[in-house]
Amino acid sequence: MKLGIYFDITKEMVDRCSEITGLPAEVRPDHPTEIELIQKDFLLGPETKLIQTITAGVDHVKITEIPKNVTFCSNADAFSDPVAEHAFALILSHIRKLCTFDSMTKNGTWKKLPVSSLKHKTLGILGYGGIGRSCARLGKAFGMKIIAFTRTPGDGTNVDRFVNKPDEIFRESDVVIIGLPLTKETRGYVGSELLSVFRGDIIVNVARSDIVDKTSMLEFLKKNPEKEYLSDVWWGEPRIDGKIPENAVLTPHVAGLSPD
Amino acid sequence: MKLGIYFDITKEMVDRCSEITGLPAEVRPDHPTEIELIQKDFLLGPETKLIQTITAGVDHVKITEIPKNVTFCSNADAFSDPVAEHAFALILSHIRKLCTFDSMTKNGTWKKLPVSSLKHKTLGILGYGGIGRSCARLGKAFGMKIIAFTRTPGDGTNVDRFVNKPDEIFRESDVVIIGLPLTKETRGYVGSELLSVFRGDIIVNVARSDIVDKTSMLEFLKKNPEKEYLSDVWWGEPRIDGKIPENAVLTPHVAGLSPD
Repeated sequence: MKLGIYFDITKEMVDRCSEITGLPAEVRPDHPTEIELIQKDFLLGPETKLIQTITAGVDHVKITEIPKNVTFCSNADAFSDPVAEHAFALILSHIRKLCTFDSMTKNGTWKKLPVSSLKHKTLGILGYGGIGRSCARLGKAFGMKIIAFTRTPGDGTNVDRFVNKPDEIFRESDVVIIGLPLTKETRGYVGSELLSVFRGDIIVNVARSDIVDKTSMLEFLKKNPEKEYLSDVWWGEPRIDGKIPENAVLTPHVAGLSPD
Repeated sequence: MKLGIYFDITKEMVDRCSEITGLPAEVRPDHPTEIELIQKDFLLGPETKLIQTITAGVDHVKITEIPKNVTFCSNADAFSDPVAEHAFALILSHIRKLCTFDSMTKNGTWKKLPVSSLKHKTLGILGYGGIGRSCARLGKAFGMKIIAFTRTPGDGTNVDRFVNKPDEIFRESDVVIIGLPLTKETRGYVGSELLSVFRGDIIVNVARSDIVDKTSMLEFLKKNPEKEYLSDVWWGEPRIDGKIPENAVLTPHVAGLSPD
């Protein structure tokens, strides 16, 4: 179990966590903004019938260790709205060159550079769960055409067309948002094959790093300096091994955060 | 008349402009990305009935010099969608701390910082023309409550409530977007009185710099380091006199630009 603090953690805070919970606690060595409450097993009482994780993804849970008579629930869709908002923050900030302009004007330079717009562009959504639906709603409001790939179409409000194969998403979209869960089927799903047919400009990952094959993506970014990877996740996070390519924009797994 | 180029202008380009138009041309000394075609008067033919400016604002046109029998039209609403998109790019980029994260991660640091979200926040729109309507539509898609101030309400799609006085906008909003035209009535309109009642966090200006009183705004930003002025315009642009406050984010009058 972990407790996110997101500012400097003092020894008093760690001790207080331990006192309150009765569990040994420590600052996570690789996540210095989080306190971990150390426990070997799930805290199962004799009457436990359900375990609920607060996260949407469940790739961090050893599901085989949960007894068969206990129902295990993810928290899918709980973070869809802030995640979609974050995806559009990444896209808009990039196409309107906000970081470049902010740094230029703060250095005293007023210089217009070409900017882009979402209107009439095609947004391809890979995986159409809660995040996908929220992204479709926002994309529609910005005047985009929405296509989506999913194995279970269901409600298609705001979707112009469901496509049958993931490569159609990459062939037809200006912007692709990855909103798949990480499972053994989706690990490395976005690899050289899909990337080689991508005709658009921007790939956004607000899901899990390992849905994208690292080697293929780094090669793709090197070969296509004009295309961008906007991602809230990174392989091996929170460690960043090697230099982040100039045509990647990265946020530290904060898409799901919101004050609500 | 001017011609925006937005990349380095060569002498050949200037000469070619002059050849094509038959007018003397020069690079504007204060706008080095624009060529100006120099002419004293409007190019009026004996049958001219209408003059159309390509800009939404008309504060740069000497309207008294246009003969009475010639109709003069602004281009209001032509840029509403890209301008609203730019306003939300400024807001989202700021609340999700994208420039900070991009610079931190590129320097090898993975550190979560608190971020904010638009959902359930109140968006106050000052001036409800084309830009106001586009902003209301986007705000609604992000789950915001929309209030607006205008002298001529008209169509209120996406507006939860029209307010009667501009200070209600500043009292009740988390985010204020200024979408007024610059006229003699609106020059300095957002001054110390309105700023002193502002309870929210963010003021966005995608209209004209002089709608906001410079002295009052700079004082407001100094006194309230946690509040932000996100602006596409600056007093005396393209010159930037003095240091831009840290709690201002500035883009060089590019909100209306789009490839369409």
